[in-house]
Amino acid sequence: MAGVMQPASESNANSEQRGELELVRRLSKTLGWPGESSEAHVAFGDDMCQLTPDDNTLLGTVDMLMDGVDFDSRKHSWEAIGRKAMAVNLSDCAAMAAVPVSALCAVALNANLTMDAALELHRGAHEFGLRYGCPIVGGDTNSWPAPTTISISVTARVAPATTPVRRDGARAGDRIFVTGPGGGSILGRHMTFEPRVELALDIRRQLRPHAMIDISDGLALDLGRVLEASDCGAVLDESALEAVIHPDARLLAKRDGRSPREHLLHDGEDFELIVVLPDEVPDQDWQRLGLLPIGRIASETGLFLEQADGQRETIPIRGWEHFK
Amino acid sequence: MAGVMQPASESNANSEQRGELELVRRLSKTLGWPGESSEAHVAFGDDMCQLTPDDNTLLGTVDMLMDGVDFDSRKHSWEAIGRKAMAVNLSDCAAMAAVPVSALCAVALNANLTMDAALELHRGAHEFGLRYGCPIVGGDTNSWPAPTTISISVTARVAPATTPVRRDGARAGDRIFVTGPGGGSILGRHMTFEPRVELALDIRRQLRPHAMIDISDGLALDLGRVLEASDCGAVLDESALEAVIHPDARLLAKRDGRSPREHLLHDGEDFELIVVLPDEVPDQDWQRLGLLPIGRIASETGLFLEQADGQRETIPIRGWEHFK
Repeated sequence: MAGVMQPASESNANSEQRGELELVRRLSKTLGWPGESSEAHVAFGDDMCQLTPDDNTLLGTVDMLMDGVDFDSRKHSWEAIGRKAMAVNLSDCAAMAAVPVSALCAVALNANLTMDAALELHRGAHEFGLRYGCPIVGGDTNSWPAPTTISISVTARVAPATTPVRRDGARAGDRIFVTGPGGGSILGRHMTFEPRVELALDIRRQLRPHAMIDISDGLALDLGRVLEASDCGAVLDESALEAVIHPDARLLAKRDGRSPREHLLHDGEDFELIVVLPDEVPDQDWQRLGLLPIGRIASETGLFLEQADGQRETIPIRGWEHFK
Repeated sequence: MAGVMQPASESNANSEQRGELELVRRLSKTLGWPGESSEAHVAFGDDMCQLTPDDNTLLGTVDMLMDGVDFDSRKHSWEAIGRKAMAVNLSDCAAMAAVPVSALCAVALNANLTMDAALELHRGAHEFGLRYGCPIVGGDTNSWPAPTTISISVTARVAPATTPVRRDGARAGDRIFVTGPGGGSILGRHMTFEPRVELALDIRRQLRPHAMIDISDGLALDLGRVLEASDCGAVLDESALEAVIHPDARLLAKRDGRSPREHLLHDGEDFELIVVLPDEVPDQDWQRLGLLPIGRIASETGLFLEQADGQRETIPIRGWEHFK
């Protein structure tokens, strides 16, 4: 779901999903700006990428949503589907602390779709984008016999003389936060979440974060991406995690027998931000912005859960897939 | 196929296809830059649109291609499919005389696709883009059980202090040209065409065209778009048209009993440019660039064919659809 060569999600560790993650790794090596240096450019392996070779304040991202995978047209209104197709891109902007500017929307509409449905889909995306200053300014409409597919790409800007917040800046000793509780978004929030665009700008201005990412494929998997990009590990605090479990995660846990924490760690599409801050940021500063601490960056690679008694267990770096 | 809220094509005049064109018209009225003026912005109703509100030299376009509609994965290599997905966008850049800069590529891959096929698809698009200075710099990979869908969006620039060549500048008395022969592209050229990016830049610099568009949905339909945007009509010369019929159009005509001229006028995906020049451009100037004259812009609306004896018939403004 996230913007740059990431699979929509990684479900249980079957070979095909591993194949998809592997595809992304291989693409990251072969595509991208020619001769790019990770210092000079924002590109593959982040939520957005640099659209021109000479300006790292102009960023782009794209997300494709498919009926039956990312939404269910039998259940969700076309307006809500359009809203989500826009919102997932705005969440990528938030992850980079970038201000969305405009969107392009390409659709392959199922041939049975009515004119009203097609208009509602576009209107839902456009009007939600407008709330964030991001109208749909162009697109491509197609119809075909297969399920409806929507691809929205968004252009965004970071303020001049500032740089986007990347995912590769986490350092041992940094504290890890989330912008809200997670887990169980499949119960409805994955369609109705509010992208953290404005909060992300406040975080960048006031707290100077070392790294950010949005939670599209699951807290563990997306934090794992920060750790991989930053070449470090993390230790999450059991009681702190307990405090950021969304009520939906508890509700879902009752139904399916998995633990609420498992839903928190591995469900996708929370679309909250993971924020990595230097240790010296005063508590009142991140508290004022409502950030919720969950652990610390460690020099040892791997993702761990630490209990009150100091015991550690490994958290598998995997996510969750909707509708499958 | 063309970049901005256009159907991939319009086939025979069944109600669904009319519905799709009508959808595009309605979208053009509701989406776009808020409060936009057609003078100030390049937006809906052209091959590319302006990506930021304050800079009409930074343009974007998007095209979505679907297996079984725009390509046939049983017949075409994944590399050729990736190439086409990039090339159709580069053709939109050519239509605006814009220089492509970078691309985002979102895919929904059929779940049975191999890793090698997925890599080949991306490599085909990326390497073809690189030839035009337009690498894939970001994207989104997904898999699903339905046919493979590819959406590429391209960012492009026009030179500072110049403006993009729009489709709404044709004036009565202007001459109409194409950059190459057309018709019958389904026999293969729709996968292998060379987008007219460099030629378009020469045309803009040397000839100062009043309007341009690329032929994605058929000469008649795409010229019709220029006429609609420019609020005028056109008269095409029968013998001039005869001279721009591609050999593929003649070959196809022998097989299906339609006339070569019908293929020229209504087949899609030639991806040559229609160029509208002021009458005062000296013949040797457009001849030097290899442009082929086909007729003139008229103040009377409608599209007409004029025979040597002066007789006129109406050319229906409709295009052709592949694979259906």
